[in-house]
Amino acid sequence: MSPDTARPAPARPHDRLAAWLADDMAAVNDLIAGRMASRHAPRIPEVTAHLIEAGGKRLRPLLALAAARLFETDLEGRHIRLAATVEFIHTATLLHDDVVDESARRRGRPTANLLWDNKSSVLVGDYLFARAFQLSVETGNLRILDILAEASATLAEGEVLQLTAAGDLSTTEAVYLQIVRGKTAALFAAATEGGAVAAGAGADHAAALRNYGDALGIAFQMVDDFLDYGGAGDGIGKDIGDDFREGKITLPVIRALAAADEDERAFWKRCIGRGQQQDGDLERALAILARHGALAATRTAALEWVARAKTSLAGLPEHPLRDMLADLADYVVERVV
Amino acid sequence: MSPDTARPAPARPHDRLAAWLADDMAAVNDLIAGRMASRHAPRIPEVTAHLIEAGGKRLRPLLALAAARLFETDLEGRHIRLAATVEFIHTATLLHDDVVDESARRRGRPTANLLWDNKSSVLVGDYLFARAFQLSVETGNLRILDILAEASATLAEGEVLQLTAAGDLSTTEAVYLQIVRGKTAALFAAATEGGAVAAGAGADHAAALRNYGDALGIAFQMVDDFLDYGGAGDGIGKDIGDDFREGKITLPVIRALAAADEDERAFWKRCIGRGQQQDGDLERALAILARHGALAATRTAALEWVARAKTSLAGLPEHPLRDMLADLADYVVERVV
Repeated sequence: MSPDTARPAPARPHDRLAAWLADDMAAVNDLIAGRMASRHAPRIPEVTAHLIEAGGKRLRPLLALAAARLFETDLEGRHIRLAATVEFIHTATLLHDDVVDESARRRGRPTANLLWDNKSSVLVGDYLFARAFQLSVETGNLRILDILAEASATLAEGEVLQLTAAGDLSTTEAVYLQIVRGKTAALFAAATEGGAVAAGAGADHAAALRNYGDALGIAFQMVDDFLDYGGAGDGIGKDIGDDFREGKITLPVIRALAAADEDERAFWKRCIGRGQQQDGDLERALAILARHGALAATRTAALEWVARAKTSLAGLPEHPLRDMLADLADYVVERVV
Repeated sequence: MSPDTARPAPARPHDRLAAWLADDMAAVNDLIAGRMASRHAPRIPEVTAHLIEAGGKRLRPLLALAAARLFETDLEGRHIRLAATVEFIHTATLLHDDVVDESARRRGRPTANLLWDNKSSVLVGDYLFARAFQLSVETGNLRILDILAEASATLAEGEVLQLTAAGDLSTTEAVYLQIVRGKTAALFAAATEGGAVAAGAGADHAAALRNYGDALGIAFQMVDDFLDYGGAGDGIGKDIGDDFREGKITLPVIRALAAADEDERAFWKRCIGRGQQQDGDLERALAILARHGALAATRTAALEWVARAKTSLAGLPEHPLRDMLADLADYVVERVV
């Protein structure tokens, strides 16, 4: 037996987290299933089930549970309600995002706005957000509520900012970071900080976990933006170019714009600024990104946030979950190389 | 001087409420103005200001303030934050409603979805809902939070129910009541019950104010549904027929359907069930409603809820605000005769 086949491949970090937290996750899934029901409006569970059963990694609830379980305290179910809350907020956001982006596919399936209509996606999203509000109140902890409410506002602000920045070639890296914090990092940070608060952790530990979630979320979104241009690989089997078509200004484009000559600037202006795209434009965009090393630079930026995420874990209690969270930070970037 | 000119017309009840609660309302308006700002996304205050400055009666914040001030206790600003919360939830709902109904006008002005786009209306609505969540947490009172979260869920459920019931001629009066509770009464009841809780009122008083808000909201919505067919007047200066065009099943239609002959049933089936409408259909609908007394019956049903609203006030402390709330209940129906 060669060493290659003797040893099973180490499970991916989020699979190890899911295995460690299996009982908690089962409780979260039960709570989600119970609360997405509606006695009066069957459209609600139909739309929600379509999205929730399509899978997804349940990364946000796992982060909340892992943060809470680090402290080995009596949680009285607060972490379960927190975890279900962040998943409901996330699902509500996906429903509204697909309306705003006019998306046709999500997680390999037709989107809800396509299967039903935009109206259902808007209203069922509102329902899930209201359910999230209810679940969060059931934690009975005003500090957790404050964290979740602030994250919700940052999230919604980030979505509006992304909408108004679309097509605006003067978008700075600072504004990009604001958008990324809004659309991804705010909820990651609320999950991890909320988990710490649910466990009665001290202010230092809660801040450390907040910083971890924030940095992890930023790295995660940067990698997503990098993958939308095919990443470093050959892009086989993955849809690419959504951001390009929607005129979203992401880090690869910002880096390429900073290094652009006159011709390239005119190209970005036409494609992203005015949204006038034709066959071959995405290929040309990829060639320009490659010429300026814009994708490699995005990966490097993501790695810097991974390093910050791991540094944030340093002052936390030693625990297998802490090590898994560190591995998860590495994996966020490794998954694509 | 004739008696007609000597005595100024008595102010309408909500104007008297607004005058009595002027200082509180000024604080609510300041809070709303402060919280609708966004440092990062100027689209947010643009869209919100368009709607908030268009006026509206601010009925929901007035209800919250009146309920709280009935008890003459130290409120520590909780009632102000509650009142701003309900107005933010209401405004968020209006933004999403106009997207779902594809409306072009609201409060005599073009709607936000028309002036900007549906995307902005969806995302700014989400932002306002998140801000409402934040403001409600600042009341620091878990019971108020619970009331608001439940109302939000009932509201969103009612909206989905209305969407799925549209065009469904088998919609019962019970489902209609569920929809009305969702779209209007839930937030009225949360405002009045929340006001009582903000004032530290006992459970009996809080329940009485909840029942008042619920009944007032149902009467208010029934009158709205009645006015959408021109009410008892000549309909001059008022757009009518929106519900008819959108295929909404409201109480006038339910009552007319119950009394319909075969021809009329076929008419409703074509116009509401299949949405196939042509010139003259609205006029024919009005004639059918008149023949069966369906508008008068709707007004009678609204008056029954007004009576319930007033009965609910009986056990509350004697107070000028209590009398104004009673007058407001009468006015909800009187305004249209």
